[in-house]
Amino acid sequence: LTVEAGCTLRDAQRAAAEAGLLFPLSMGSEETCQLGGVLSTNAGGLAVLRYGTARELVLGLEVVLPDGRILDGLSALRKNNTGYDLKQLFLGAEGTLGVITAAVLKLFPRPHSHETVLLAVTNLRAACEVLVAVRATLGDCVTSFEFVTHEALGLVLRHLPDSRAPFGGAVTHFVLLELSVRAGDTHLRSAVEALHKQLLDDGVVQDGLVATNESQRAAWWRLRERIPAAERAAGGSVKHDVSVEIGDLAQLTESAAAAVKQLVPNSRCSIYGHIGDGNLHFNVLAADGADPLLFREQHAAAISDAVHRCALALGGSFSAEHGVGQLKRGLLRQTKSPVALDLMMRLKASLDPKGLMNPGKML
Amino acid sequence: LTVEAGCTLRDAQRAAAEAGLLFPLSMGSEETCQLGGVLSTNAGGLAVLRYGTARELVLGLEVVLPDGRILDGLSALRKNNTGYDLKQLFLGAEGTLGVITAAVLKLFPRPHSHETVLLAVTNLRAACEVLVAVRATLGDCVTSFEFVTHEALGLVLRHLPDSRAPFGGAVTHFVLLELSVRAGDTHLRSAVEALHKQLLDDGVVQDGLVATNESQRAAWWRLRERIPAAERAAGGSVKHDVSVEIGDLAQLTESAAAAVKQLVPNSRCSIYGHIGDGNLHFNVLAADGADPLLFREQHAAAISDAVHRCALALGGSFSAEHGVGQLKRGLLRQTKSPVALDLMMRLKASLDPKGLMNPGKML
Repeated sequence: LTVEAGCTLRDAQRAAAEAGLLFPLSMGSEETCQLGGVLSTNAGGLAVLRYGTARELVLGLEVVLPDGRILDGLSALRKNNTGYDLKQLFLGAEGTLGVITAAVLKLFPRPHSHETVLLAVTNLRAACEVLVAVRATLGDCVTSFEFVTHEALGLVLRHLPDSRAPFGGAVTHFVLLELSVRAGDTHLRSAVEALHKQLLDDGVVQDGLVATNESQRAAWWRLRERIPAAERAAGGSVKHDVSVEIGDLAQLTESAAAAVKQLVPNSRCSIYGHIGDGNLHFNVLAADGADPLLFREQHAAAISDAVHRCALALGGSFSAEHGVGQLKRGLLRQTKSPVALDLMMRLKASLDPKGLMNPGKML
Repeated sequence: LTVEAGCTLRDAQRAAAEAGLLFPLSMGSEETCQLGGVLSTNAGGLAVLRYGTARELVLGLEVVLPDGRILDGLSALRKNNTGYDLKQLFLGAEGTLGVITAAVLKLFPRPHSHETVLLAVTNLRAACEVLVAVRATLGDCVTSFEFVTHEALGLVLRHLPDSRAPFGGAVTHFVLLELSVRAGDTHLRSAVEALHKQLLDDGVVQDGLVATNESQRAAWWRLRERIPAAERAAGGSVKHDVSVEIGDLAQLTESAAAAVKQLVPNSRCSIYGHIGDGNLHFNVLAADGADPLLFREQHAAAISDAVHRCALALGGSFSAEHGVGQLKRGLLRQTKSPVALDLMMRLKASLDPKGLMNPGKML
């Protein structure tokens, strides 16, 4: 599927569907972003576990170079090992090496339907246990595996009036997972139900539901997708977008939560994210009733420093999916190895010697 | 999974299996290649349709740079958008920018078992019809989709004494496809059989078999994998590794076969490959009884020129998976756009200004 950079994610998804296929990149409710930005930031989204990030969903690119020439790479070939794969330079480069103007997107067979499962867990360790069990049993059918803490769920329930707690009002940590189903695969439902029962019996999950209709599925996804809006309604948060290996996720949240509590004892952590990809949004809000602006002014820098330190100490990343931009340039300089930084500067100098492209970003 | 560059593909597959997971890159019977080479050439193999090429199966890389410094990128993070993704520079660069010394490989849930299907078809167009039908019905379960012409099969049957024709002795074009099955998915077998019956009823395929045991599966794969050995036993061939969009495959083989017959009327074409990826091996042998060495000496250059022209005229590639090396440097210079060539030269000059890395290759 060939699209221009200004095409929205939603339009790309629709065009793929009209061709009977799937463009699997999805941001949930925020599908009005444009492909140029999606590709320049190597966006992730809700189905990375199964389909990869934006970089993995591109076959060809057209790029305007800093000197005005056009790199015409709008090829739809699946395999082409003739020289350096130049498109890789521009994917995720945040516009600092050239401007992506069009792309050929990779499409996939369209799943016939979905199974959506909501599981109540007592902590992130249990959620990671569920992930291992689900992938071992159901394998690559798993497209999304999201974790939401009861604090994040609580913010949604409190600040977004039309939302409802899923487990009869109990506000728990939960896992939201989705599996894609091929046509006629009636067995997946029973496999999901068997696994669900096993997880309940083993005490790994406390409660669980399998969606019986689309509106139930949509309601559960809204609980996940509206967390950023709820944080805004609560006065805003100090946001982080960290990743570690999946086995280190629980340790990351424990150590970061402890560090944050030590800095600002009454602050609230809203933690959620794509744990199937090792990626958590670890956001921190002012104490209930405290002035959120003042809180951020006084504590944001120290809190971010502490959270990023915890991720980096585990070999993690301070920007799993949101990139560097202006805000995290200092972090990039502080944390990348001198060799990596030198290579980045050499690439930039080689492709954009006059520094024309998106100045002040990333490097 | 972290491996050193000297680790063989087979060892990587075994280590993944011991961890209960899958490293899906597979070259069939030639698993003694080393990961350093596999990654430097962005190798493809037999499961690209489902899992991608080598580039897509790497999370982190360690590289020795031309100046002796080490780029330590042995990270296992699934998502990390902090600056340029430097490993992409070295994957598929054929060692011209640095030496890959170790890698972190991406592993996948291990399928429980396989379904292997062999279908007799009358031509490549029918094989492509099967591909579309199979992907529409069975979706991402399809891991391999290989096509073999009766000429290529004939070479195997004639030159490799322990091989046997699959359809009761009839030597036909065939499609070999494989689907991965998760634990307990008993439905896939019946879906495969229903599709098989439908394709027979519609006249798209002439005959078909679903493997009932591992030795049958292995025997069918040997027919595919031993074609290169059979070509060698027949005196050698003029080899091509071309790709086009899947919809153009039939036209490619028709126009290339016509061009070759015009150049050397009695030559034989051995055509086979990964048509699920749009990638064909279009190999040409001397007429039966003719001196193969003399044939190659006299005709190889003109034949290759004609076959590559046919691929390029369809927007295709002259090297889908085997890279550029020494042999195809001229082709790269002739066929890449000046902008792309200039960018490649700039990358090379920027990272390896003294031209120390694998001189004489690719550029």
